[in-house]
Amino acid sequence: MKKIRAAVVGYGNIGRFAIEALEAAPDFEIAGVVRRSIPADADSFPYPVVTDITRLGEVDVALLCTPTREVQKNAEKILALGINTVDSFDIHTSIVQLRRDLDKAAKAHGAVAIISAGWDPGSDSVVRTLMQAAAPEGITYTDFGPGMSMGHSVCVRSKEGVRDALSMTIPLGTGIHRRMVYVELEPGISLDDVTAAVKSDPYFSLDETHVIQVESVEALRDMGHGVKMTRKGVSGKTHNQRLEFGMSINNPALTAQMLVAVARASFKQAPGAYTMIEIPVIDLLPGDREDLVAKLV
Amino acid sequence: MKKIRAAVVGYGNIGRFAIEALEAAPDFEIAGVVRRSIPADADSFPYPVVTDITRLGEVDVALLCTPTREVQKNAEKILALGINTVDSFDIHTSIVQLRRDLDKAAKAHGAVAIISAGWDPGSDSVVRTLMQAAAPEGITYTDFGPGMSMGHSVCVRSKEGVRDALSMTIPLGTGIHRRMVYVELEPGISLDDVTAAVKSDPYFSLDETHVIQVESVEALRDMGHGVKMTRKGVSGKTHNQRLEFGMSINNPALTAQMLVAVARASFKQAPGAYTMIEIPVIDLLPGDREDLVAKLV
Repeated sequence: MKKIRAAVVGYGNIGRFAIEALEAAPDFEIAGVVRRSIPADADSFPYPVVTDITRLGEVDVALLCTPTREVQKNAEKILALGINTVDSFDIHTSIVQLRRDLDKAAKAHGAVAIISAGWDPGSDSVVRTLMQAAAPEGITYTDFGPGMSMGHSVCVRSKEGVRDALSMTIPLGTGIHRRMVYVELEPGISLDDVTAAVKSDPYFSLDETHVIQVESVEALRDMGHGVKMTRKGVSGKTHNQRLEFGMSINNPALTAQMLVAVARASFKQAPGAYTMIEIPVIDLLPGDREDLVAKLV
Repeated sequence: MKKIRAAVVGYGNIGRFAIEALEAAPDFEIAGVVRRSIPADADSFPYPVVTDITRLGEVDVALLCTPTREVQKNAEKILALGINTVDSFDIHTSIVQLRRDLDKAAKAHGAVAIISAGWDPGSDSVVRTLMQAAAPEGITYTDFGPGMSMGHSVCVRSKEGVRDALSMTIPLGTGIHRRMVYVELEPGISLDDVTAAVKSDPYFSLDETHVIQVESVEALRDMGHGVKMTRKGVSGKTHNQRLEFGMSINNPALTAQMLVAVARASFKQAPGAYTMIEIPVIDLLPGDREDLVAKLV
């Protein structure tokens, strides 16, 4: 059987784990990696490294592993080549607009884009939707952590006198989170001043926040993360139906694995842009359809 | 907006809860109930009660709430009228064959059948598939209970001298279950004999089984049930990814609610037969697609 040729665009954490997930998948082969510039040691890398995807020969699908803000630009360029794209775009308030824009780009070139397909947004979204269907009235709480928040860490790093920073998200239940912020400071900088700047930032002002000075932020980094979603609601007219879903996972490894799964699924969809709740979960898996039904239903 | 006209076929536990779930759904109206015979008090029932679905006027979809073994016969008859069907057929080993047979029947009449769409098989199957996609190597355990097992209860009731019986499934973890069997005996019957008959039956012989005599089985009945699914596996090349899903629910209420959700989804599929893992979860919900994406992704 012909394998799916995939390109990895961006080579940060998610890109590295995407290479591993593609190597582990039975139905993919790696066309190469697209980076902004070619590193000095590119020759020792087992796959081609290029700055332009058109140099990789035939590519069926591109896994966009860049920062979220670069997703749309890259997706539109690659969809215009008739190549499917998948991403883990995670700015919740902009997902509908991205879906509209990429839907247009994808349909114009007979390609498929699957967007916001990490774990949240992504696989969590599928479970959230299913929970809503199982108990249409009620409340779902999504509690994240413990794990690093990239957005919050970047925000702290931007404060004056902060050399490095890491913000941990701690779940307190019912969607309420504590922020544990670890900072490495420049010499002569007051922790009190930095703490005040962090606590007054909109990123942190609504949450319980603690700022702690450490010698090395690097020594604290751990890619583990977690989530717990709970729903208590009503099925028909029957109250107190309780559902929960939880994970304790390596964050970029799961994100990369979901990207590989939706890259596979992209070839089962009609041209256009989709979120994960719009594609059947069976399409995420390789193998014969009846075998999957027999094993998993 | 025109509402979906649904018929409920069979009026046991699931049928009763299906009426409630349809009444609670904003986009359905109830065409009536199809039963084997018309009960004496049918006139006081708020909906038409008939023995033949063709007497209900226009029907868009039929919710099959009969015992599992009557699903196929009813589905084929109703699909032949061009009416969609949904069911919670639960004999795992026969699902692939039912899907093949109903796929043929549905396609021949431009209709849609969604099969095995309760909670297990059903919504659990969607989560099981998603977990497999998130961590392709690893083991998923499904632990049921505590809750009544219909199949096991019926088996015990068939034993000589047993007036009534109830078998509770107790989860011991890693897919291992204890069976707690409560029996009401005819006068003069030996509990030891019944216990021996139950423990040697293939339904029970592989599980830890306890048989307990009670005065009234009726007094023990409770429709609560539960499940916990856990998967520990590998995303890409990263081990120890842990995922879990659990529910504590009224069993027929959740089954009926899932039937209503897939009844709605049936109108978004091309003619044919589907299991729940083959339909996008967004189709389970009423409302505007972009609104759902904005709220749930």
